[in-house]
Amino acid sequence: MPDSLVPIAPSYNGHLHTGPTAPTAILMLNLGGPQTADDVGPYLERMFLDRELIPLPFQERLGRFIARRRTPKIQKKYAQIGGGSPIYYWTQRQGQQMVKWLDQISPETAPHRFYIAFRYADPLTADALHQMKADGVRRAVAFTQYPQWSCSTTGASLNELWREILRLGLRDAFAWSLIDRWPTHPAFIEAMAGKICEGLAQFPPAERDSVLLLFSAHSLPLSVVERGDAYPQEVAATVQAVMQRLDFSHEFLLAYQSEIKPFKWLGPSTEQVIRKLGAQRRRNVLIVPIAFTSDHIETLHEIDIEFAELAREVGIANFKRAPALNDDPRFARALAQIVAEHLRGNRLYSTQYKLRCPGCQNPMCRTLLSPAKDIGCAEGSPAAEGQLSAA
Amino acid sequence: MPDSLVPIAPSYNGHLHTGPTAPTAILMLNLGGPQTADDVGPYLERMFLDRELIPLPFQERLGRFIARRRTPKIQKKYAQIGGGSPIYYWTQRQGQQMVKWLDQISPETAPHRFYIAFRYADPLTADALHQMKADGVRRAVAFTQYPQWSCSTTGASLNELWREILRLGLRDAFAWSLIDRWPTHPAFIEAMAGKICEGLAQFPPAERDSVLLLFSAHSLPLSVVERGDAYPQEVAATVQAVMQRLDFSHEFLLAYQSEIKPFKWLGPSTEQVIRKLGAQRRRNVLIVPIAFTSDHIETLHEIDIEFAELAREVGIANFKRAPALNDDPRFARALAQIVAEHLRGNRLYSTQYKLRCPGCQNPMCRTLLSPAKDIGCAEGSPAAEGQLSAA
Repeated sequence: MPDSLVPIAPSYNGHLHTGPTAPTAILMLNLGGPQTADDVGPYLERMFLDRELIPLPFQERLGRFIARRRTPKIQKKYAQIGGGSPIYYWTQRQGQQMVKWLDQISPETAPHRFYIAFRYADPLTADALHQMKADGVRRAVAFTQYPQWSCSTTGASLNELWREILRLGLRDAFAWSLIDRWPTHPAFIEAMAGKICEGLAQFPPAERDSVLLLFSAHSLPLSVVERGDAYPQEVAATVQAVMQRLDFSHEFLLAYQSEIKPFKWLGPSTEQVIRKLGAQRRRNVLIVPIAFTSDHIETLHEIDIEFAELAREVGIANFKRAPALNDDPRFARALAQIVAEHLRGNRLYSTQYKLRCPGCQNPMCRTLLSPAKDIGCAEGSPAAEGQLSAA
Repeated sequence: MPDSLVPIAPSYNGHLHTGPTAPTAILMLNLGGPQTADDVGPYLERMFLDRELIPLPFQERLGRFIARRRTPKIQKKYAQIGGGSPIYYWTQRQGQQMVKWLDQISPETAPHRFYIAFRYADPLTADALHQMKADGVRRAVAFTQYPQWSCSTTGASLNELWREILRLGLRDAFAWSLIDRWPTHPAFIEAMAGKICEGLAQFPPAERDSVLLLFSAHSLPLSVVERGDAYPQEVAATVQAVMQRLDFSHEFLLAYQSEIKPFKWLGPSTEQVIRKLGAQRRRNVLIVPIAFTSDHIETLHEIDIEFAELAREVGIANFKRAPALNDDPRFARALAQIVAEHLRGNRLYSTQYKLRCPGCQNPMCRTLLSPAKDIGCAEGSPAAEGQLSAA
């Protein structure tokens, strides 16, 4: 948890670039979150106006209407978790640690600078691009902070990146490559396994062996699953890799949370699973957020407040949550390692990136403007998909 | 493909047990299939009367009605693939090779005999149990031939096993342990990767790099997914493990086939994906059956005839199928290795076996009658879940 959630002005990187070499930019893509109560409205509006996330009929009018209607309710939730989302705070700390490690393990591409591009909150993509330009960046890596691909998350962030580059006339400014997924990268899995061990330590020793690990990922509308989105497969792969790392020490389940009506969503629903575990008189449950790398409203409110209360109601004696990766140094090292392998691999993106969903209707998808061809990149990279040995 | 589909009388094992030691029985659990046109009716009737597979209102009457109505249509399909299902033929060959290997790599538990228990076709569970009794078996391993757990497949087979043991008064006859899942066992993954390479070799060399690997598994009703069935997670884990083994050499998708109306099933649907790949002008598709280890009507008819015709219609120039594992010696060795590790591991079942689905309503589930305690077994086995190194 951050000591303070006071909004911090985007300062990007701790150390100054003084050498003769242009910095290598690592653009960290994520959802973002409102830092104050006043930010909630614009945040929800951007979200409900994004038809790559939530396609609505009469998007402009209905999106604004839904956002306005939900704002007070969501403001109240943020008030209960300290006033705002900590995602900017955590991403900054992750970025700072990551570039420090990167300068050590990849001196040939140093100095490294990180930039943050949130999809629905400050700093937005345009802020990051302006700062990159001001810093004299040429070579840039767009690094999704969602371990598993979904068109709703990484896809929407990348599409926004290409749109903003064109809008700002920055097509020739940077040479890009992408880390578009890393669901089973061994260093990420190692960090996740560590968080689960920390979670297990919260249980009374005598109960620890009987803990059920309830992996929970943000759900996806079934329409997106049916379009062929890779997310369910990749989330499941992460779960399996973590359990293998733990030697299948505990029983586990995978469920999905945060469905929004009236769509049909991928199940089983975490909320329903908690109810049913209560009915089965399960005493010990450790919930493990598996598709997001920082604390956010779905961990701090939905899990820690709403699900914890539900668990009490249905009689689960010990309901705990594995800590989010946040500023865990193992995770920052994992991020650095993923980037270092990517830079060494000289590939533009993963093998999967160019594969549009079979049901895709969005001509924007799977674009790559200004590929980093000049530095000898080739297409298709297995690097970030986890099969490379640890550096 | 078998040379002949003439029904073979269940003879179980090639070599006779002559030594002083009672044989270790490996009971291979699978769906089964009708070997002749006359077998189709009883096969479908068993299937539609099984409420662990397809819960129906008025199961007895409606099940028989649906089975009778579907019989001529399904008979026609079997006629088109040579008259019957080859699953008995292939399971026999797999079993023969498996016990030969087992006697070599696990001499301490030799001799090994395999028995086949199909859920809906001969030989049924009772046939296998009678034969085991006649052979003087004491120690028995129930070995599911479905790599990934589902309550509809492995669960239903095991529940039938316990019911039949009780019905036949054989509770004290055998001491049991279970291999209830093996979705990412390295030897299985190795064999699968080999089959994909054989599949790729069917494409013109110039086209080979652009082949899309379309993994296809039997679909599951969404109601079963929502109950918390492990199948989608484990199928996805198999796909990821195979792709890692192949170094993510090709683009891939996971889809689900064989939905039966009027239920809602897990998607994306293989059929719909093929249509959409055609619309995207995809030229080269290799379909890879990933949740079944022998040829059966879903490979020989649904894929090789129906989907192949659809692929032609929608303009996919090269639509091929990876061969099923069938009697591939790598696969028989994998089966032997999985059993040998299980026997050495001295565990009764996987860590996941005793975890009932959160939405489970079936008091029969996750039973183990007559556990092999006398041979020093402990509960919970990671062995068959794939994290053990190759023997």
